[in-house]
Amino acid sequence: MSGESYTMKDAMLYSQRVAQLSKALWKAVEKDWQNWIKPYDLNINEHHILWISFHLKGASISDIARFGVMHVSTAFNFSKKLEERGYLTFSKRDDDKRNTYVDLTDEGNALILKMYDHYHDSNHSIIDGSLPLKELYGRFPEFLDVMAVIRNIYGEDFIEIFDRSFSNFKSSLEEHEDRLIARS
Amino acid sequence: MSGESYTMKDAMLYSQRVAQLSKALWKAVEKDWQNWIKPYDLNINEHHILWISFHLKGASISDIARFGVMHVSTAFNFSKKLEERGYLTFSKRDDDKRNTYVDLTDEGNALILKMYDHYHDSNHSIIDGSLPLKELYGRFPEFLDVMAVIRNIYGEDFIEIFDRSFSNFKSSLEEHEDRLIARS
Repeated sequence: MSGESYTMKDAMLYSQRVAQLSKALWKAVEKDWQNWIKPYDLNINEHHILWISFHLKGASISDIARFGVMHVSTAFNFSKKLEERGYLTFSKRDDDKRNTYVDLTDEGNALILKMYDHYHDSNHSIIDGSLPLKELYGRFPEFLDVMAVIRNIYGEDFIEIFDRSFSNFKSSLEEHEDRLIARS
Repeated sequence: MSGESYTMKDAMLYSQRVAQLSKALWKAVEKDWQNWIKPYDLNINEHHILWISFHLKGASISDIARFGVMHVSTAFNFSKKLEERGYLTFSKRDDDKRNTYVDLTDEGNALILKMYDHYHDSNHSIIDGSLPLKELYGRFPEFLDVMAVIRNIYGEDFIEIFDRSFSNFKSSLEEHEDRLIARS
């Protein structure tokens, strides 16, 4: 058996292992996500579109498809449904006539913030399952090897959008909290 | 703002981050998996059932559902289709009349081995995306934090079945290679 074929076997075992792990992880995430969004009559794709539009502050349909890892047609069709429900509007930009942009309406923005306020009304197995690691390390795990693999598969700009959306996410939560405190 | 509400915000940011990461990882895995199994006219659930039956060497429908993270009805319905195609048979056990067990036929076993022989005929983005880490660390990443979270969510016996199936996987590949070498 050559060195190369040994490596091929290793590579197969490794990727099959990642397949099992990532299916189990995703199924837990999917269940948490569905439980959270159920009261708002949204499916995961619809919520993901609102999430991305909110955090990227003006995303094109192709940004949404790319960052949400969904087909462009899926991104477009569900955006259309969200537009009909009054959560977003479509627009074109003068400097970019080819792409369709999505902007949340006030109602869409309010929905996203309301959903954050009620985040912990449903159970999140991912949080519960990570608390022992948080106790051990003093922080939630960072999944750095998963991040590295995703960076290699989806490209540097995927990670940049990822980081940008989380930084916006964090500041929007802080603003929202400040407003709640000011109001009370 | 209390210390607890800060932790709640952290927990939300963390779990939303895991949601995005795990969706991106799973979508890459799913695409690799579909490309690999396409020539054999199987869907992911069907292949997963064959995979689990092969590696657990006699699994019940509820083992398959649990370890494959699918509904029992999904496991049963797709097993039925695989039975009709001659890849597996159903049986009851004298010591366990309540569960239905699944055993691969010779044809089912041969299919699984054939699919391993052709594993690298299709592209696996997970492998390509992990090679820089392998070069850096001398081995493929182990996703230990993901494993720990999954252990907490799905329980110790899920991980035991996981380890058992991978140990069987490894030895079945070695036996298969020995047979191929003996034949040549």
